[in-house]
Amino acid sequence: MTRTNITIGLFGFGVVGQGLHAVLERTPGLRARIGRIAVKDRSKSRPLPAELFTFDKNDLLDDPNLDVIVELIDNADDAYLIVKEALQKGKAVVSANKKMLAEHLPELIALQRTTGTPLLYEAAACASLPVIRNLEEYYDTGLLDSVEGIINGSTNYILTAMNRDGQPYAEALAKAQALGFAESNPALDVEGLDARNKLVLLLAHAFGLVAGPEKLLAVGIDRISPLAAAYAREQGLAIKLVAEARRLPEGGGIAAAVLPTLVASSHELANVHDEFNGLVTQSGFADRQFFLGRGAGAFPTASAVLSDLSALTYGYRYEYKKIQQNAHLTLAPDAAEVDVLVTFDDAYPPDEADFTQVHEQFRSARRGNYLTGTIGLGQLARAAWLRQPGVSVVRLAVPLRAAKTSANAQVIASKRVAAIQVD
Amino acid sequence: MTRTNITIGLFGFGVVGQGLHAVLERTPGLRARIGRIAVKDRSKSRPLPAELFTFDKNDLLDDPNLDVIVELIDNADDAYLIVKEALQKGKAVVSANKKMLAEHLPELIALQRTTGTPLLYEAAACASLPVIRNLEEYYDTGLLDSVEGIINGSTNYILTAMNRDGQPYAEALAKAQALGFAESNPALDVEGLDARNKLVLLLAHAFGLVAGPEKLLAVGIDRISPLAAAYAREQGLAIKLVAEARRLPEGGGIAAAVLPTLVASSHELANVHDEFNGLVTQSGFADRQFFLGRGAGAFPTASAVLSDLSALTYGYRYEYKKIQQNAHLTLAPDAAEVDVLVTFDDAYPPDEADFTQVHEQFRSARRGNYLTGTIGLGQLARAAWLRQPGVSVVRLAVPLRAAKTSANAQVIASKRVAAIQVD
Repeated sequence: MTRTNITIGLFGFGVVGQGLHAVLERTPGLRARIGRIAVKDRSKSRPLPAELFTFDKNDLLDDPNLDVIVELIDNADDAYLIVKEALQKGKAVVSANKKMLAEHLPELIALQRTTGTPLLYEAAACASLPVIRNLEEYYDTGLLDSVEGIINGSTNYILTAMNRDGQPYAEALAKAQALGFAESNPALDVEGLDARNKLVLLLAHAFGLVAGPEKLLAVGIDRISPLAAAYAREQGLAIKLVAEARRLPEGGGIAAAVLPTLVASSHELANVHDEFNGLVTQSGFADRQFFLGRGAGAFPTASAVLSDLSALTYGYRYEYKKIQQNAHLTLAPDAAEVDVLVTFDDAYPPDEADFTQVHEQFRSARRGNYLTGTIGLGQLARAAWLRQPGVSVVRLAVPLRAAKTSANAQVIASKRVAAIQVD
Repeated sequence: MTRTNITIGLFGFGVVGQGLHAVLERTPGLRARIGRIAVKDRSKSRPLPAELFTFDKNDLLDDPNLDVIVELIDNADDAYLIVKEALQKGKAVVSANKKMLAEHLPELIALQRTTGTPLLYEAAACASLPVIRNLEEYYDTGLLDSVEGIINGSTNYILTAMNRDGQPYAEALAKAQALGFAESNPALDVEGLDARNKLVLLLAHAFGLVAGPEKLLAVGIDRISPLAAAYAREQGLAIKLVAEARRLPEGGGIAAAVLPTLVASSHELANVHDEFNGLVTQSGFADRQFFLGRGAGAFPTASAVLSDLSALTYGYRYEYKKIQQNAHLTLAPDAAEVDVLVTFDDAYPPDEADFTQVHEQFRSARRGNYLTGTIGLGQLARAAWLRQPGVSVVRLAVPLRAAKTSANAQVIASKRVAAIQVD
């Protein structure tokens, strides 16, 4: 293992790009420097000498003095073209673009294989937390049972501000944006799509399962109703946006989804506040592990890019060996079920026939209606009522589980119903 | 980066060695197998074919078919000789022997340099938690401010059993031993010496500071008095055995110690229960991170050995680059101070002149005596009364800090005193 010096061609000089520059300045131990920066907007004034910048991507992609392309631009389609061309030209790439990665992962994996050139993206999932490389290296195939996490800092910031500080949703969202935690298109955050993109990356490195984001159910936080929030509060539970991927027993495949979830205070994820991310892994030998760290922001993201650059200096690359080893593994939404709370207006009730079991019904002209019940994960994803106005779905507890009607669901339900006031 | 197959020469077939065998059996993805096992006790019956075993260490060290020596024996002196000889013979080594590593680290680092042969020891600190490699790779020099952690599973198991379950100390210790969490010599655990050995490893990989364990103050949990336990309970604080290393401001060096510590429920380490370990890092760009996982037990330890074996297949080694970069960095116990609770019998009171400031005094014929105050870390380590019968020292809060009298110490103290009943 010989460490090499690297010269970076950087695409994008927004908050993360500038954060990376600042981080590199203060990291003399890493023999990496920025050689050239490609930017889009000709009108912006920038804090570095003009000769460092170019508006032509080929000035970076064709420069033989640049060893590594770091891609930190916002537009996923442009990013894809840059990363693809860089790999084809034999330049190692570091990217933080989870949307681009999630949408093109199969091709990008194939491209790394054919070109022999590495693409690293630790910053694309959980920012500062070293999850991708740890999943890739520390948990071998067959040993990992599940990953469950809060993997979007922006929505966790918003939920924390709403739950703990009593801020209204719109105000909390605006503040997350002002602090630079939110995606430029906040729908990606609040609709759970950013978390879903990251879940695609976790699935690939945790289980060797490569699935497009459109295959995964994602319910966001943008439609959490006041009644759902009150239900959570009255139960003493926190609503968190939880991404989960779990190996179902007896070769039942993988269940994965992003869902607002009621989390008990004893669960590790209940202690993930503000823009922090947290990930719980469960594996055969290491058992339960929990990683907590900043999941958004310029410096935490830049620090993850830095760790990829450091890894490139010793020739590290993702092997994706679990993909070969788990070639039989598939997503099995119809083999999994969840307990959910559905709140709704009279106009768009959920279809009770979709549920394996309905536990509670609550109707109130003043507070709204709710239903709790057990439903197949696939059934929930297909339910037309899920996307109707006024419908809000919150999972009642963290683990996804193999589909069967829970024997004690009724007992749990009757406890829950006691805690909420009926008109 | 080409992954290679490896054949292991294993020293020791105790709980961890047998755990490793089981883990390897269930990890087909790692191209590693056990070629030969050296054991000491000729009388034991073993669950594997007799031809796998030998009683002569040279059968492993001289076998050209064995690529990697995995050292999992208990005796630190024997382990040292094995590891040294293996490195000299060009065999990569994985060791979990924190005592051996802490006592011989400078020589073992030098030996890796001169032989070019790697020695990995992820399992030696925090078992299943990937702390060594993350400290080595994710936090570059100058960026890490502190590591603070619960890094001994046995004592945390005991403290949890005492605090949460109300078990007496002796019973909790016996149970930790029965469960295989404790060192064969429990004094290493309960006197804080095992945690101190691990702190030596953390110091080397976090700050590039190589210091012998004898340079670090370690106070164990074996002398926590009923009065100290009552004080903690009445304040609603948990007593945890916390190892900490912290960069003092303005080039003040590193303060490091292992101390029983009162931890507030809002601190991450308060959520580390049973035999789990937890580590909080604070760094310039990633900011605060927390890692939680099983810190003791055969499988968690074996899973860390496994991750080292996996790393060896792609030629990974520790670079210890922070040692060069931080050559000026030294331990500075006299530049740091702590607030402590000292409980004591009338026969051996602490010397008040040692304290920068005494905050509270409490005397009770029935309950015992205590004193709280601020004391220099170096002064505490040198205090003769510290080791007298009946003296118990517990730190009042987690961070070590630069030496200066805290302006608001008196205010804090007066709040504290109100909570404890005086006879």
